[in-house]
Amino acid sequence: MLHGSISQNSKTVAVIMAGGSGTRFWPLSRASFPKQFLKLGENGKSLIQETYERVSTVVDDVIVVTAQMQVDLVKQHLPGVCILAEPCPRNTAACVGYASRYVQSVAGNATLLFVPADQKIIGEQEFRDVFINALALASQQAVLVTIGIVPTKPETGYGYIKSGEKKDFNSIHYFSVESFVEKPDLVKAKQYLASGEYLWNSGVFSWSVSSILESLEKNTPEIYHAIKQMFLLDREANIEYIRKAFPTLPSISIDTGVMEKAPNAVVIPGKGFAWSDIGSWESWIENSGRGIENLIIGDVIALDSKGCGIMAKDKLIAVIGLEDIVVVDAGDAILICKKDRSQDVKKVVEMLKQNGRGSIT
Amino acid sequence: MLHGSISQNSKTVAVIMAGGSGTRFWPLSRASFPKQFLKLGENGKSLIQETYERVSTVVDDVIVVTAQMQVDLVKQHLPGVCILAEPCPRNTAACVGYASRYVQSVAGNATLLFVPADQKIIGEQEFRDVFINALALASQQAVLVTIGIVPTKPETGYGYIKSGEKKDFNSIHYFSVESFVEKPDLVKAKQYLASGEYLWNSGVFSWSVSSILESLEKNTPEIYHAIKQMFLLDREANIEYIRKAFPTLPSISIDTGVMEKAPNAVVIPGKGFAWSDIGSWESWIENSGRGIENLIIGDVIALDSKGCGIMAKDKLIAVIGLEDIVVVDAGDAILICKKDRSQDVKKVVEMLKQNGRGSIT
Repeated sequence: MLHGSISQNSKTVAVIMAGGSGTRFWPLSRASFPKQFLKLGENGKSLIQETYERVSTVVDDVIVVTAQMQVDLVKQHLPGVCILAEPCPRNTAACVGYASRYVQSVAGNATLLFVPADQKIIGEQEFRDVFINALALASQQAVLVTIGIVPTKPETGYGYIKSGEKKDFNSIHYFSVESFVEKPDLVKAKQYLASGEYLWNSGVFSWSVSSILESLEKNTPEIYHAIKQMFLLDREANIEYIRKAFPTLPSISIDTGVMEKAPNAVVIPGKGFAWSDIGSWESWIENSGRGIENLIIGDVIALDSKGCGIMAKDKLIAVIGLEDIVVVDAGDAILICKKDRSQDVKKVVEMLKQNGRGSIT
Repeated sequence: MLHGSISQNSKTVAVIMAGGSGTRFWPLSRASFPKQFLKLGENGKSLIQETYERVSTVVDDVIVVTAQMQVDLVKQHLPGVCILAEPCPRNTAACVGYASRYVQSVAGNATLLFVPADQKIIGEQEFRDVFINALALASQQAVLVTIGIVPTKPETGYGYIKSGEKKDFNSIHYFSVESFVEKPDLVKAKQYLASGEYLWNSGVFSWSVSSILESLEKNTPEIYHAIKQMFLLDREANIEYIRKAFPTLPSISIDTGVMEKAPNAVVIPGKGFAWSDIGSWESWIENSGRGIENLIIGDVIALDSKGCGIMAKDKLIAVIGLEDIVVVDAGDAILICKKDRSQDVKKVVEMLKQNGRGSIT
C-alpha cells in the first residue's frame, strides 16, 4: 500500500490526489492511462509532473494517493515520490481520510494541502501564493480551507462555491462557505458570474491533520473509525487491514461528506492566474490561451488553419483549411473532432465498448 | 524495355498509359507510387486494375506503357500483362509513337485504343460501348478518334474539345474536331456547357497503327523517325537504341502534337456514365456519388459527420461533428483537409520538399 515514506519532522505536506480515470481525453487517455499522466503541454511534462513541481516548492513533503494499478505509472512520472495506493476507488472523502491518517502516523499534526493531479495552471507563481495563504490559514486556525477560483466566464462545466461572510486573518482575505453548488446551466452560470458571490470549486483544500480528522469523525464517522485503525499495526497486517477495510468505506466526495456540513469551512479566492481542470479537448485548446492560433504538438504542418489543437505522435499530420478542429493521434487510434463537440468523445468510447472493442478504450 | 508480349494475330490492342506521377493524392500517392496504383474505391481494386478490366473485354490484347521505375508495381497489379517501359517520361506523343510502333512490329496494322490508367468510371458497360464504337470507327475509317465526355457541369478542372461538323458511319454518331481548348475559367466553362458544342477531353483515343504513324510522320517527324528504328534490331541492341533515343524525343502531348493539327481528328461523344479523372481528393469523394453521406474506407467511426471522405489504414479513425473534410491515413503521414481545399495538397508537398523532407513525398 505504501511506497516510500515522508520525513517525520514535516510540518507541511501536499497530497496529490491521482486516483482519477476518465475517457474524456480518448484516444490518448485510456482506462489504464488516465488524464493526469498525459503530456498535454508543450513542455513535455505530464499534468502530475506539473502538479508535483507546483506544490513541492511550497511544502516540506509530497505524497501521491493513487489506484493500485497506477502505482507503476506514478513511479515512472515521479521517481522516488511517496505513494499511497488505494485498493479500490472510494471517492475523495476516503482518500482524504486515508492520507490524513497516514501523515498523522508519521508526522503528527502536520498542515496538509490536497490537490488534484490533473489541473492545468498558467501563472504558477500566483497560484503558489494562494497555496501559501491557504497553508498559513489552515496551520493557525481550526478551519477547513478550500480554494475558490474567481470566475472569468459563465462556465457550466465546473461546480461553484457560494461565499458567505468576509473574513481576514493576518492580511489573508477569505470567506465563510455558504454552500457548494452543482454545475449550473448557462442562465444560472451567468447569474453566478454577475453576482460576484460565486467561485469555481477548484478541488484544492488545506487543513491541519487534527481539524480534518475531527470533522471526519463528526460528519463521516464510518470513514473516521476505519482509518483510525490504519497504520497502527505492523506493515503486513496494516496492508491486510487496508485491503479489507477500504472497500467497505462509503463512496462520498469530501465536498458532500465534510465541507458542506462543516461550520468551519472557509474559502480563499484565487485569481491572477488561468486555472482549468481541462475537462475536454476543447478546454485543452482554450486553456493554452492561443485564441485563433493553433495549438500544435509534434510533427504537424498546418496550412490556412486556425483555432485547432493538433497532437501528432510518430507520424506527420498535415492539415489544410481546418477551423476549430481537434486532431489527436494516439498511435493505435486517431480522433478528429469539431472542437465544440469534444464532450462527445465519451460517446465514441461507449460505441467502442458496445462493439466489443474495449481494449482500445 | 519490354516485359511479356502480345500475340501476333491481334486485331485490336488497348494501350494503358500509366506513366503518370503526381502529388495531388498525397499522402497516399508518392513520387514512386502514383495515383494509378491507389485503391481509391471500396472494391479493393486499384485504378489501373479497374482500367485493365474495362478495356480487356473489348480488345484482343492489352499493353501497359509505364516508367521504368514503375514496372514492378505494374507487375504486382497486373500479373502477366505486357509492359513497355519508357526510359524517361516524354509526354503522350512519344508514348503513343513508342507503343504504336511496338504493336506494328508484332501485329501489323492493328486498331489501337489508348486509355489513361487513372480514370474512374461509374457505368462501365456504357463506357465500354463507346470504346467499341471508337474501335469500329477507327478500324474502318482513316480517322484519329478521341472520346469526348458530354459535360454535366461547368467543370474548370478539365480541358475541352470543341466539336465541329456532325458525321455518321454505320450508325456511329461523331463529329469533326474543331479545336482543343485548355481548362477554362468558370465563366467560360458555363458558356461551354450552355452551348452544347463542347465536350470534356477524356484523353482516350482510338486509331489504326497506319493512321497514327502517318499523322506522327506529318506532324511530329522527330518522334516518327526515332520510333521507326525501334524494334528493328535484336533485343539487346533495341534496348540500347531506345535508351539513347528516348531522351532526345520532344516532350509534347498527343493533343498538341498531333490531334490539333490533324484534319482527320474526330470525336465520339460519350454519355450515360459518370466519368472522372479524379484529380483531387474532392473529386474522389464527389465521384463516389454519395452526396452528403460519408465515403468511408477502413476502420472508421463517424459520429454526426457528413460529406466527408475518410480512409483509414492500420488504425482506427474516429471523427465527430465533421463536415466536408477529407481524412487520409497513409501510414507515415495523415492528411486532414477541408474538401474544397484539396487542390492545395500540392502546397504541402512543396513545403515538405523545401524542408528537406522529400522522402515523405
